[in-house]
Amino acid sequence: MKLLGARISRLEKGLVEISTHNRPEFSQQDGFVHAGVCASLADSAGGYAALSLLPLGSRVLSVEFKMNFTRPAIGDTLRGRGRVRKLGKTIAVCELEVETRQRGKWVSCAWGSQTVYCIRGD
Amino acid sequence: MKLLGARISRLEKGLVEISTHNRPEFSQQDGFVHAGVCASLADSAGGYAALSLLPLGSRVLSVEFKMNFTRPAIGDTLRGRGRVRKLGKTIAVCELEVETRQRGKWVSCAWGSQTVYCIRGD
Amino acid sequence: MKLLGARISRLEKGLVEISTHNRPEFSQQDGFVHAGVCASLADSAGGYAALSLLPLGSRVLSVEFKMNFTRPAIGDTLRGRGRVRKLGKTIAVCELEVETRQRGKWVSCAWGSQTVYCIRGD
Amino acid sequence: MKLLGARISRLEKGLVEISTHNRPEFSQQDGFVHAGVCASLADSAGGYAALSLLPLGSRVLSVEFKMNFTRPAIGDTLRGRGRVRKLGKTIAVCELEVETRQRGKWVSCAWGSQTVYCIRGD
Repeated sequence: MKLLGARISRLEKGLVEISTHNRPEFSQQDGFVHAGVCASLADSAGGYAALSLLPLGSRVLSVEFKMNFTRPAIGDTLRGRGRVRKLGKTIAVCELEVETRQRGKWVSCAWGSQTVYCIRGD
Repeated sequence: MKLLGARISRLEKGLVEISTHNRPEFSQQDGFVHAGVCASLADSAGGYAALSLLPLGSRVLSVEFKMNFTRPAIGDTLRGRGRVRKLGKTIAVCELEVETRQRGKWVSCAWGSQTVYCIRGD
Repeated sequence: MKLLGARISRLEKGLVEISTHNRPEFSQQDGFVHAGVCASLADSAGGYAALSLLPLGSRVLSVEFKMNFTRPAIGDTLRGRGRVRKLGKTIAVCELEVETRQRGKWVSCAWGSQTVYCIRGD
Repeated sequence: MKLLGARISRLEKGLVEISTHNRPEFSQQDGFVHAGVCASLADSAGGYAALSLLPLGSRVLSVEFKMNFTRPAIGDTLRGRGRVRKLGKTIAVCELEVETRQRGKWVSCAWGSQTVYCIRGD
């Protein structure tokens, strides 16, 4: 997240957003933010969202995630959001979304799902 | 890819590898390379693999990808590989894999699939 | 859908539900409805949801789908729901959900995403 | 599997195939085998492939799967194949493939990945 200059911008039980300012080096040849950057923000947000529901000292690992890229990612700010849809004993399922701010308005550009493995702390 | 210091290390028709040296800032809290970094390498490799089969001037867009993370990503070098499994008129399906080099040996740490939308050049 | 005795139980622009009564032959060894049955209902619902937004005479094809199975699928009735999240010129992205009715209450047991290829009619 | 008239046609450690004869009621409006039927065969094959590597008395549950549909599924026979790519303590990752036999030749029509939760017997 340091590499992307990202920080947690919203933190609730089961819902986390991670934001960063867009930078030229996030973009691919055609000026859109790289799918990997979007996926990084989303994956981190989902992991933290799961962590927010677990006891202190717990750890999480991404088992898998899938993202659909629905709109070109352009804009001055990016944010990834993770929301826990189901928390089991060892596995959490999160909904992921990535939005960009374009002329003051947030637009969804990627959406997906994630399985998180939860190693519960004491 | 510049952000990750990555470069194309293998380029065949329908098969592309992208490699980079591991760096501390790629890692998350527990010392493993972030899932998003792995996904970035893999997604780029898949896109280039599709592009390698298309006429000059073509462009590609990731429609979606999914990655399963099968082993902790540790090691001195990372590489993502994309291989086209099916090329249709407008859609290509690629197999993605990420490997890390640990004590001179390549170990697979992530594996997945990708749908690429192909805008064919003339 | 005939094989599953399923029928469309809700039809709005961009939102379709397909329902069926649960039957012993839908279940696997442990009494839960087979993941493939759930996926079938969801995939069909998503395809019809996309179709509901397209001109008459259009056709749709599933490019891919992914389902997370979040709870054991038990109950007397099953329903799959597809909702279009993004309709592009040739590609639609749908959210899929499968619910079962257990003692009169609907419970979500699977959730996922789908890419649909749209061949527009005249 | 009974509903589809399917049976295990190949069984090795970590690799299982499940086959069935194609039937009119497997097809959707355009004569192709329904994506859900393909997914059912593949999901079952993957589950059994994981089970084949576990101690007697173990059970498996699909956590998630994703399928890309790469060619129209037509032909007289269908088979789904599951191959374990990584077996961990509680989670297995399988590669899934569905093939149809067309004029005596097997053709791949769907390909994907699956996460299986393993409840180990004694």
